[in-house]
Amino acid sequence: MHTPLATVPIELGDRSYPIQIGAGLLGDAATYRDLPSGRWGVIVTNQTVAPLYAERLVQALSARYARVLTVALPDGEVHKDWDTLNLIFDRLLEEGCDRKTVLFALGGGVIGDMTGFAAACYMRGVPFVQVPTTLLAQVDSSVGGKTAINHPRGKNMIGAFYQPLLVVADLDTLDTLPERELSAGLAEVIKYGPIADPEFLDWIEANLPALRARDKAALTHAVRRSCEIKAWVVGQDERESGLRAILNFGHTFGHAIEAGLGYGEWLHGEAVGCGMVMAAALSARLGLVPPAFVERLSRIVDAAGLPVAGPRQLSAAQYLDLMRVDKKSEAGEIRFVVIEALGRAGMRAAPDDVVAEVIEAHTAR
Amino acid sequence: MHTPLATVPIELGDRSYPIQIGAGLLGDAATYRDLPSGRWGVIVTNQTVAPLYAERLVQALSARYARVLTVALPDGEVHKDWDTLNLIFDRLLEEGCDRKTVLFALGGGVIGDMTGFAAACYMRGVPFVQVPTTLLAQVDSSVGGKTAINHPRGKNMIGAFYQPLLVVADLDTLDTLPERELSAGLAEVIKYGPIADPEFLDWIEANLPALRARDKAALTHAVRRSCEIKAWVVGQDERESGLRAILNFGHTFGHAIEAGLGYGEWLHGEAVGCGMVMAAALSARLGLVPPAFVERLSRIVDAAGLPVAGPRQLSAAQYLDLMRVDKKSEAGEIRFVVIEALGRAGMRAAPDDVVAEVIEAHTAR
Repeated sequence: MHTPLATVPIELGDRSYPIQIGAGLLGDAATYRDLPSGRWGVIVTNQTVAPLYAERLVQALSARYARVLTVALPDGEVHKDWDTLNLIFDRLLEEGCDRKTVLFALGGGVIGDMTGFAAACYMRGVPFVQVPTTLLAQVDSSVGGKTAINHPRGKNMIGAFYQPLLVVADLDTLDTLPERELSAGLAEVIKYGPIADPEFLDWIEANLPALRARDKAALTHAVRRSCEIKAWVVGQDERESGLRAILNFGHTFGHAIEAGLGYGEWLHGEAVGCGMVMAAALSARLGLVPPAFVERLSRIVDAAGLPVAGPRQLSAAQYLDLMRVDKKSEAGEIRFVVIEALGRAGMRAAPDDVVAEVIEAHTAR
Repeated sequence: MHTPLATVPIELGDRSYPIQIGAGLLGDAATYRDLPSGRWGVIVTNQTVAPLYAERLVQALSARYARVLTVALPDGEVHKDWDTLNLIFDRLLEEGCDRKTVLFALGGGVIGDMTGFAAACYMRGVPFVQVPTTLLAQVDSSVGGKTAINHPRGKNMIGAFYQPLLVVADLDTLDTLPERELSAGLAEVIKYGPIADPEFLDWIEANLPALRARDKAALTHAVRRSCEIKAWVVGQDERESGLRAILNFGHTFGHAIEAGLGYGEWLHGEAVGCGMVMAAALSARLGLVPPAFVERLSRIVDAAGLPVAGPRQLSAAQYLDLMRVDKKSEAGEIRFVVIEALGRAGMRAAPDDVVAEVIEAHTAR
C-alpha cells in the first residue's frame, strides 16, 4: 500500500511537518520523496529493531542518498546516556558526514529521543526523520520535538526541543511489538482522553480488545486521534511554558516510579499507567472529580494490561524526594497535572501529606 | 560608572537581546535589573577567572537570586569537552536547580560556548547571560548564539544555536588579560574590516597601538563596531545557511592549525590571524584581490602581535585532510571564505594544488 491511511499535519511555522500513518510506509521509497537530498542518510536504530526493519529502510532510502549508513545502538532505556549518544557522533565524524546529512530514527522512544538530540547537536543541527516502531513512540514522541538523554540524577535532564522533518508511523511495525510494549503504548493513548477528549476515552474503553489484537483500523484511529490532540496542545505551547504540561498527566508519579526502581525496570508506559491512576486519585482527593472516575480510569488502565498499583519497594517519602527534582517542579514545589473535569486538565500543587496518602492507597503492599 | 558606554541591540525577533559595553558593568547590580528573577543564579567560570571576578559578580547578583552558585571549571580549550560540561550538569542537579535557573558565563570563549551549550541542554533549555572577560569573547562569541563543545575528531562539532538574554562586555576585565590573549582577540576585530568595512580596517590600522595599550575609548569603538557588523550579518542568517559563513574568514585554515597542533597549542585568535593571511593569499591567487592587499593584511596581523606564518610541523596535505572534515565543507569539498573585494567576502572552492601552494608560501620552514 503506497498511500498513508491518514496524515496529521503538525503546524509550527517554519518547523511544520507531517505525520504519515499507515501500513507499508517504511519500506516504500515514495514515503521519503519530499525530503531534502544529501550525500548521507544515516539510520540510527537499536540491536533489536535493526534485524527486523533496517534493511527495508536502507533499500527505500538508497534512491535519495548516495551513502546510507546504519548505526545500531544497544537496546534499552539504560543506554539512553551520553556514552551511547556518542556512538552516533563517533560514526558520523568517522564517515565525514556533513551538515546536510539526514538522520533517521528507526525504533521506539529511546531511539527517537537520542537520534533527535544527536540531530539537534551534531554540527549544531542536522535534519532528522522519525520512523517510530512502537505504539508509544507513534502516539507520543512523534509530536512535540522533545529530545533528550538521561542523567544519573534524572530522566531526560539533558536535551533539546528539536522538530523532525517527517514522521512515518508504519502500523505494520506494531505486528512485531511484544505484548508488554503494546500495553505500554496504550497508556499514552488512554492519557489523551481524560486531559482533552471524553468521547475518545469512551472509544478507547470500547475498543481496547481490538487495539490489543492489533486491528489496523482501530490502531489508525488511536494513533491519529492521539497525534491530533497532542498537536493541538503543542501547537499552542511549543516550548512547554504552560498548557503543554498537561501532556504529563500521570508522568510526575510515573517518573518517580521509573527513577526509584532504576530506569528500565518498569516500562515508561507502565509507570505512566499507574501514575495516571495516582494523579486521578489526587484529583479526586482535591475534590475536582468524583471517586467513580478514579475507579473507571483504573479499570481502563487494567484492561490495557497495565499496572494500577505502585511497586511495593517505594515509599511515599521516596516518591516525594524524586518528584521534587522533576523538571516540572519549581523551586522545590511539585506541580501535579490534575483532571479538573473529564476532558480538561490543569496544574496544581498539593500538600505532601495528601500526596503521600494517595500514593499509599495505590501501592501494592 | 553605572551606564554602559554603548549598547548594541541584537535583533532576532523573540530572541533579541542587548550587548552592553562599558567599564564597571560586571559588579553593578543595575546591569542585571531587567533579567527574570528566579531562585538560582549560577555563575559558570574557570579557575583562572574565578579569583579575579567571581566574587564581584556574586555580590551583584545576590539582589536578584536567593542562591548564587559558582562552578569553576578547569581552564583551557583542552577542557572544552563532555566531561567538563557534565561538571555543570552535575552541580545543577545536585543543587536541584529548576528550569528558571539563570546561568552566567563568566570568562572567555570556551566558558561562553560551554555555558551556552549547558543552558541550551539543561532541562531542554534554561536562560543564560554572557559576561565575556576576553576581547575575543566580547567581539565574537557575544553575537551569534553559537555554543558547542569539541569532539576528539573536530572542534565545535557538538553544539547548538542558542541566544543569551544579555551580554555584559565590561572593558575593565581586559586590564587583567595577558598580552597574548589581547592580540588573539584583535584577530577577530581585524577580520571585520576585510569582510565588511574598509573604513574600519583603516581605523584599526591607525589604532592598533592604542588598542594594544588597552585605551578604553579605542576598545569601546573596536568592540562596538565588531558587534554591530557581526549583528548585521547574523541578523540576516541566524542559522548559518549562507551569508553568515563569511564570519569564518581565516577560520578554515585556522581550525586546521588548531586541530593539527592539538587544541590549545596556538590560541584560536592566533590561528585565525595566520589563517586570514592564508585566506587573503588564496583570494589573490584566485585573482580576486591584488597581492598588495595580502601584504597589507599581513602587516596589520603582525602589528597586532599575531603570527603570519603557519607552524612548520604541518604539511599542506595535513591542512587539506583536516579542512575536509570542517563543518563548512560539503560532501568533502572545502568551501573557503575569500575576499572578493575589500569589504566584501564570498565562498569559493579551490583546487587542492592551489591551496597547497598558498599554505606552503605562508608556512615557517
